[in-house]
Amino acid sequence: MQKIIDPWGSGLVEDYVKLIKDFGLEEFDKSLFPEPNRLMRRHVVFSGRDLGIISMCIKEKKPYYVLSGIMPSAERLHFGNKMVIEQVKYFQDHNAKTYVLVADLEAASTRGITLEEAQKRAKEFHIPAWIALGLNPKKTIFYFQSQNKDVMHLAYKFAKKITLNEFRAIYGQADPSRIFAALTQAGDILYPQLEERMPGIIPVGVDQDPHLRLTRDIVSRSKSEKFFSPSSIYHKFTPSLNGAIKMSKSSPDSCIELPEDLTSVKKKIMRAFTGGRATLEEHRRLGAEVEKCMVFELLKQHLVEDDKELDKIYQEYKSGKMTSGEIKQLCYEKMEKFLNNFVKNIDKARKEVDKLRFVEFG
Amino acid sequence: MQKIIDPWGSGLVEDYVKLIKDFGLEEFDKSLFPEPNRLMRRHVVFSGRDLGIISMCIKEKKPYYVLSGIMPSAERLHFGNKMVIEQVKYFQDHNAKTYVLVADLEAASTRGITLEEAQKRAKEFHIPAWIALGLNPKKTIFYFQSQNKDVMHLAYKFAKKITLNEFRAIYGQADPSRIFAALTQAGDILYPQLEERMPGIIPVGVDQDPHLRLTRDIVSRSKSEKFFSPSSIYHKFTPSLNGAIKMSKSSPDSCIELPEDLTSVKKKIMRAFTGGRATLEEHRRLGAEVEKCMVFELLKQHLVEDDKELDKIYQEYKSGKMTSGEIKQLCYEKMEKFLNNFVKNIDKARKEVDKLRFVEFG
Repeated sequence: MQKIIDPWGSGLVEDYVKLIKDFGLEEFDKSLFPEPNRLMRRHVVFSGRDLGIISMCIKEKKPYYVLSGIMPSAERLHFGNKMVIEQVKYFQDHNAKTYVLVADLEAASTRGITLEEAQKRAKEFHIPAWIALGLNPKKTIFYFQSQNKDVMHLAYKFAKKITLNEFRAIYGQADPSRIFAALTQAGDILYPQLEERMPGIIPVGVDQDPHLRLTRDIVSRSKSEKFFSPSSIYHKFTPSLNGAIKMSKSSPDSCIELPEDLTSVKKKIMRAFTGGRATLEEHRRLGAEVEKCMVFELLKQHLVEDDKELDKIYQEYKSGKMTSGEIKQLCYEKMEKFLNNFVKNIDKARKEVDKLRFVEFG
Repeated sequence: MQKIIDPWGSGLVEDYVKLIKDFGLEEFDKSLFPEPNRLMRRHVVFSGRDLGIISMCIKEKKPYYVLSGIMPSAERLHFGNKMVIEQVKYFQDHNAKTYVLVADLEAASTRGITLEEAQKRAKEFHIPAWIALGLNPKKTIFYFQSQNKDVMHLAYKFAKKITLNEFRAIYGQADPSRIFAALTQAGDILYPQLEERMPGIIPVGVDQDPHLRLTRDIVSRSKSEKFFSPSSIYHKFTPSLNGAIKMSKSSPDSCIELPEDLTSVKKKIMRAFTGGRATLEEHRRLGAEVEKCMVFELLKQHLVEDDKELDKIYQEYKSGKMTSGEIKQLCYEKMEKFLNNFVKNIDKARKEVDKLRFVEFG
């Protein structure tokens, strides 16, 4: 499983290369984007679709949008969500009209909570958390899926554009609830173009690519509507602390939640899979196997902003000068600071939520 | 094809008996309903589901509802629509809370007209026509499907209650657009129960039974929601003037539209399939084959309210005293009067549409 780890973004390891090939993605080229963010610079962002037109919009200051969604049934966020938010922020900072929807319909359907409960959780936690992680609420248009009739109308209309077999080819299954959820997402993805046709970019984990393929198929079958096909940009999974490909809540020790109690965080980091050798002597002599180290990966993906600082850590650890105990301690200190800041910023953001700009539907 | 004609409601002919058996319907029993209307008295209404509970609501003055829908893409109505409206009127006159929805979403999806155009047509023609045919607008709650978020939310939620295979078993196919339309209809059918759980009846042609089966399946899988399973009541098709089972616009000569130009109506009636014999002499001697006569069927189903008057026509025609020319002339005169009245009443109703009670959605 360690194969997929790509510690310093020097290239793409096998699994991601295969994804790119199998799904006809573009390999990410950071020169397309001015002031690339940490995830772009370090090749955590590894591919996309139709990135050229977004690059052009940024460079020529043409209108475009970025859209993402909140699944409000979750109790907390995780680092995968954090990456999406950072990507949204990048485009928001580069003049994208920004949309963030709350998928309350999907939460109600798949998680059995009521629409009201979903909306309450979004307002009390998710939206403040997104703001705490960098989203500028004053420049963001928020909406609840269930309140957006235009999105529901688009979903109904798009149902006509896709056959059951095509749906199954994309998703591997075609249960009615899946069809509703997917077509509603296609409605979300194209909704910003109802007011004005323009390119848009959807930052997601690569597991969300089917929604993009569906939406792009719908666009190509609705030529008279003149929608722009949505662009997408994909980041890798945040690897699990125990070395699995992806942090997962079903394996709680593998995963740090946002927020999470510091005692528990400390325990998890101290138990994490590292690049350390069997003995200290061996470690000093051979240096760490940084490529396998989940702790370094966390630093790289999330906790060290400055490239020079990260490089220094890499060199010291690689050379054996820094021990696994030391890199864990370093990681914990940075995580502690990050989580304390996060909690403080959520509290601050919570007070602003009532002033936010939610789309009003007539 | 003439087999299905049931001229005087003395019983059910073979095809309808088979329908009842195949789909587990109840045979209609007019003693369930006080003051049965023309369609009930003459066995044009031939079956239903769960009619007992509706009968009880009427007799014990318990709350219940009747619901029907307008497909606004059609340019005109036909006699099948007229039957639905008369059935809705019967229950409205017997204390049902009355809902009439405009299926603008379905019209937009399947007929390619815009939602705005669908709404405009409903207001300018369909709703006035329903009023002209007897609906009491002051006692009716109207809504547009596309404006009713609750209906769309129910559809999304119900998608979880049915598998693809079950859907296919009911509808014979399961294309995404069909799934959206059917689940939205299930949402419509149960929508009146959101405010108060109560029995409801849906009057439809028997070809619409799949929607009822779907909705009843959904209710039975949503036990915690405590919806009442919708009742339904079915009428036969209005036979085509040329003897086919059903008037159809794809065969314009078979069908009188509402409204239609009188010259054209006259031509169609004069060319209709009757029960007349090859020669006048034979007709006088053997009498008409009333069971095969489409003109008599029109009189029976739609144009003669009084049972004694209809019986007199039946006897005179059956005995050969009345010729096919004469029954056609009689039918045309009644049709002319009916259509003139209809047009006059539509014009009057049009002026009331702006005062109607449309549901307002927040």
